[in-house]
Amino acid sequence: MNTRIPIGILGATGTVGQRFVQLLADHPWFEVAALAASERSAGRTYADVCHWIMPGDPPPGVGEMIVRPLEPSLPARIVFSALPAAIAREVEPLFAHAGYVVCSNASAWRYEPNVPLIIPEVNADHLALIERQRAEEDRPGLIVTSPNCTTTGMVIPLKPLDQAFGLQKVFATTLQAISGAGYPGIASLDILGNVVPHVGGEEKKMARETRLLLGRVVEGRRLEADVVVSAHANRVPILDGHTICLSLGFERRPTVEEAIAVLTDFRGPAGVRDLPRAPEHPILVRPEADRPQPRRDCDAEGGMAVTVGRVRECPLLDLRLVTVSHNTLRGAAGGSILNAELLVAKGYVG
Amino acid sequence: MNTRIPIGILGATGTVGQRFVQLLADHPWFEVAALAASERSAGRTYADVCHWIMPGDPPPGVGEMIVRPLEPSLPARIVFSALPAAIAREVEPLFAHAGYVVCSNASAWRYEPNVPLIIPEVNADHLALIERQRAEEDRPGLIVTSPNCTTTGMVIPLKPLDQAFGLQKVFATTLQAISGAGYPGIASLDILGNVVPHVGGEEKKMARETRLLLGRVVEGRRLEADVVVSAHANRVPILDGHTICLSLGFERRPTVEEAIAVLTDFRGPAGVRDLPRAPEHPILVRPEADRPQPRRDCDAEGGMAVTVGRVRECPLLDLRLVTVSHNTLRGAAGGSILNAELLVAKGYVG
Amino acid sequence: MNTRIPIGILGATGTVGQRFVQLLADHPWFEVAALAASERSAGRTYADVCHWIMPGDPPPGVGEMIVRPLEPSLPARIVFSALPAAIAREVEPLFAHAGYVVCSNASAWRYEPNVPLIIPEVNADHLALIERQRAEEDRPGLIVTSPNCTTTGMVIPLKPLDQAFGLQKVFATTLQAISGAGYPGIASLDILGNVVPHVGGEEKKMARETRLLLGRVVEGRRLEADVVVSAHANRVPILDGHTICLSLGFERRPTVEEAIAVLTDFRGPAGVRDLPRAPEHPILVRPEADRPQPRRDCDAEGGMAVTVGRVRECPLLDLRLVTVSHNTLRGAAGGSILNAELLVAKGYVG
Amino acid sequence: MNTRIPIGILGATGTVGQRFVQLLADHPWFEVAALAASERSAGRTYADVCHWIMPGDPPPGVGEMIVRPLEPSLPARIVFSALPAAIAREVEPLFAHAGYVVCSNASAWRYEPNVPLIIPEVNADHLALIERQRAEEDRPGLIVTSPNCTTTGMVIPLKPLDQAFGLQKVFATTLQAISGAGYPGIASLDILGNVVPHVGGEEKKMARETRLLLGRVVEGRRLEADVVVSAHANRVPILDGHTICLSLGFERRPTVEEAIAVLTDFRGPAGVRDLPRAPEHPILVRPEADRPQPRRDCDAEGGMAVTVGRVRECPLLDLRLVTVSHNTLRGAAGGSILNAELLVAKGYVG
Repeated sequence: MNTRIPIGILGATGTVGQRFVQLLADHPWFEVAALAASERSAGRTYADVCHWIMPGDPPPGVGEMIVRPLEPSLPARIVFSALPAAIAREVEPLFAHAGYVVCSNASAWRYEPNVPLIIPEVNADHLALIERQRAEEDRPGLIVTSPNCTTTGMVIPLKPLDQAFGLQKVFATTLQAISGAGYPGIASLDILGNVVPHVGGEEKKMARETRLLLGRVVEGRRLEADVVVSAHANRVPILDGHTICLSLGFERRPTVEEAIAVLTDFRGPAGVRDLPRAPEHPILVRPEADRPQPRRDCDAEGGMAVTVGRVRECPLLDLRLVTVSHNTLRGAAGGSILNAELLVAKGYVG
Repeated sequence: MNTRIPIGILGATGTVGQRFVQLLADHPWFEVAALAASERSAGRTYADVCHWIMPGDPPPGVGEMIVRPLEPSLPARIVFSALPAAIAREVEPLFAHAGYVVCSNASAWRYEPNVPLIIPEVNADHLALIERQRAEEDRPGLIVTSPNCTTTGMVIPLKPLDQAFGLQKVFATTLQAISGAGYPGIASLDILGNVVPHVGGEEKKMARETRLLLGRVVEGRRLEADVVVSAHANRVPILDGHTICLSLGFERRPTVEEAIAVLTDFRGPAGVRDLPRAPEHPILVRPEADRPQPRRDCDAEGGMAVTVGRVRECPLLDLRLVTVSHNTLRGAAGGSILNAELLVAKGYVG
Repeated sequence: MNTRIPIGILGATGTVGQRFVQLLADHPWFEVAALAASERSAGRTYADVCHWIMPGDPPPGVGEMIVRPLEPSLPARIVFSALPAAIAREVEPLFAHAGYVVCSNASAWRYEPNVPLIIPEVNADHLALIERQRAEEDRPGLIVTSPNCTTTGMVIPLKPLDQAFGLQKVFATTLQAISGAGYPGIASLDILGNVVPHVGGEEKKMARETRLLLGRVVEGRRLEADVVVSAHANRVPILDGHTICLSLGFERRPTVEEAIAVLTDFRGPAGVRDLPRAPEHPILVRPEADRPQPRRDCDAEGGMAVTVGRVRECPLLDLRLVTVSHNTLRGAAGGSILNAELLVAKGYVG
Repeated sequence: MNTRIPIGILGATGTVGQRFVQLLADHPWFEVAALAASERSAGRTYADVCHWIMPGDPPPGVGEMIVRPLEPSLPARIVFSALPAAIAREVEPLFAHAGYVVCSNASAWRYEPNVPLIIPEVNADHLALIERQRAEEDRPGLIVTSPNCTTTGMVIPLKPLDQAFGLQKVFATTLQAISGAGYPGIASLDILGNVVPHVGGEEKKMARETRLLLGRVVEGRRLEADVVVSAHANRVPILDGHTICLSLGFERRPTVEEAIAVLTDFRGPAGVRDLPRAPEHPILVRPEADRPQPRRDCDAEGGMAVTVGRVRECPLLDLRLVTVSHNTLRGAAGGSILNAELLVAKGYVG
């Protein structure tokens, strides 16, 4: 126990913060050492200030921890940020400046040229930006970000297809779970028995982040991929799991069989697949006509795999397929934890 | 009362049959004179054999009617068919041959070269095929069909855009209500809190029927429109109302304002807009960022209008927009009734 | 049109306020003349400040009305109050003092000895308290309240049973719709696919208001009925319609047939049944084993009837039965409007 | 592996059968050796004939097993029965006669005087009936049954209260999940956004089984407890977890604190608590005003604990409280597995 790396969670009382708490309960490398939240909560026990919305109770011991303010004096080496973007924009650099390794789930610094936006299986090599970040910002610590929950579930299967066939065009229509909107999030009167064809900012994020994640880092500079994404984002009345319907255009049109083979065989780079939270198969391909389904597939491999199905030809572009992934596991807390594991493995956590 | 046209409903006990019963209760031109269903139900009262799943009760008087067999000896001039496709394939021609005007909601004869597939606001002129049908099939009656529920809600807004800008390409992702699957239809264990990314046959129907509906009838022959449709069909846990996310490509790229103007101004042909069930506005355009929504918009204009929103540019094609329409009103029983009204107005019901 | 009574709505932008707007659109006696809400909204158009959550749009003309502050200078004779309790506590007396007839849906003044709590079919005679109210409070106007939505749907069927058999004991377990919690109300993350076995204050209100409604007014004093109510209140993921499972104990044990007869025959007092919004049958008794159901029965008679079913013996008390009623129609705005109609009919609106 | 007891599952393709398959995947004592189902499925692989509705896939190795007919020639010592009642009535005695230990989840033989109806924590001593069963039926094997899912979640907390205070009267209103109805079970058009106030046969089962489970076995005869149960059963649109609102009357009225203490301290008999699937705490008492909730509490202790909350006084009887338990884990497959473990521990599996 003593040898585990002490961890802090910024924004520990929100939905993503709760996921961090839950997922880190039994982590082999990390130990939750500090919970931090806004002024309002600081100084009180986590059980007192947190409206726990996960099943059951917080893990043993956590409820009694005293919540600390969002100040860079936490007894931790890595901090996970589940802060709202505006607050993250201010707070995360303070922590990086104080020497913390910040693994952020917030959008605040995702698009900064010297801040890596990382999915380990997709672009672990973008960590090369850290050197530039430390130099330019004069910070002993660092900030690494993970993408939007929807982008994550989309880009993981796009990566091997891009490598093999040269991705050019993406049509993406999402059917997103309510847990993606946080708590209290979307009112039940708005979403029960309804579809809301709008998720604020999501369509732009999907386009932008896809270009970043599939881009290359050359001599410390990140070059965006030349992929055009046209997105429709929808909220549907389900609890967890984002579904995305994709039509894809490539430089070289793959057959359905080629595409399935490439997706099935994908394992990500060697350094990644042995990390504690890495799924054995980042992509699972299902053959059934009516899968993937969020309720039945989003928990695959501990919620860290993306399930793909209905791979078929597209009359307009080249391929159609459907993906399902867990928006608060792979798409949020789990993704950031995997990033932290990668940073440890690569020696960035001193 | 005596002067109303006597109507029969084939398949009166199913979900679409029940909608016919409900909608015809107060119809100014039509009077329900006969309910017909399979052998199993024939000879018993409608109240006895029908598991009524609409709100409340069947209209007064209907519950006591004796259900008849599916034989062309009904005291009716027009029959609405809500039969399963395989049964419709056999039964509908018998009725047409016996002189009945058959307005079918089934897919059985939709693709027959001499059977009109009609949405009155879109292609009332395709009724010209009836002459050929009567000649070729030697039937004193006739069969007219209405399209699939999803196609209906998509093609109505596509029509004015096609007229104005020349439609070429359609990406369509649907979020379809459970009532489209009939009763008992989709099991609650499959759809509650879930998305099922598959609706059997729907994607092909959407492509095929769009080409037929937007096509032209020239010298008694139906020429399909040259439109490519790539569809993703999904079932979502909502009761009524199909949502469709569309990306559209045109010969001439419209601005968002031009598109909105064309949609807003659309009224359909002169002969149609005064029919009893015709909506005043076949298309309603909403300006809000988060509309249309099925629960709030699918009942617009008695469930006969299609609501369109989020009209915006598409990075890959020309335009993106979202439509919502009622799948069992405009998309099924209501659409067939409007077809029957058109046939009466055009003099096809002797 | 000119001869209709001008109406004001206090708290016009909330969920109940919106129901008032919707229901009064075509009222034969009343005309919406003023919409009032908190400071924040005053001075702007209703369309601007109101997040309309009903289907479709506000009725024609209403969206353009300028929202006024909650001050007793509205061009109206009757005001409907859909205010939160704390605000109602302050504002409603000001209006009564200024001469307005206040029909309140709020709980603020329900338990005041000189304020009638009224369901017209149940206790129209309690209006006798108004005389005392005017004298004691020295107000030219008056306040009349309507009960909690759950109590309303329970007490209407209890009334004829009490009259016939002498009600003594009530076990009541509710399954309440989310619309009863207002907007934004209960978070979707709390209620989707879940039951919340708690509705703040509801169980006490049900007990207290039942005793008041079934009580008598004798010489200007309201005597509570001697009925013991034990309630369990639950929130379930449905949109509209409260279901209540009841076990009842009486002075004289009725047979199931007697109970059904008494419920079926109930019409309420003579002066009430002809009011514009009064249902023809305040109570509908259904014979099916699986009714009433909120989605299929809560709209009965314009949402103003209570549907009763599963009338059967109780092994512990005398009778078991299930009721369904519409919580925002009969249980809120519709109930208050019926109260206002009663006041007009009885001559209280000068 | 070789030393584990070989198990057969009768009715392996249904919802409860699937739960048995899932739960037995990693069982320390048991190994799935045979899957049996109706003629229709026999001879084909499990993957072929089973529409798997649990998350993910069947456990490794199970999909390839060949489904066998329902004949007592399975390579197993214990068989779990998830058969429909009518089939169970015929098939289970054949297996018992052939020497198998039958742990049945079906209702077919629950009420037979010589067949134990068992919840290990509640009435493990009722296994004494087995001796009589073997003698009277001349069978080398035996049948032991587990109660209805709803009764299970109710009787576990009733047991310690009965022991301490002498239970006499029970009012019970259920809010039951759809998974209790099997597959396809209840149609989505019936339950989505709705409550169905009827679950066939449930209310009688709850009354009868409670009397049996709380009864005593004296000299090989089972004496029913003198408890009167009045039940209202409802289906609500949630996936898993039955909620029950209870009002209870006792010989000696407990205080709320006494009741909570008795519930909290309950562990069941010594021989039971160490069984592999036994929960550490059969009953969990939550202090929050709005718990237990099915989605957040039904999985407690692997779905084997019953969560109790809202313990408070009852104005009519003595106590009110709410229970939540998992209907297909503790209430079905998990309960039968615990029974089998008890039988092994008590030496009934030779």
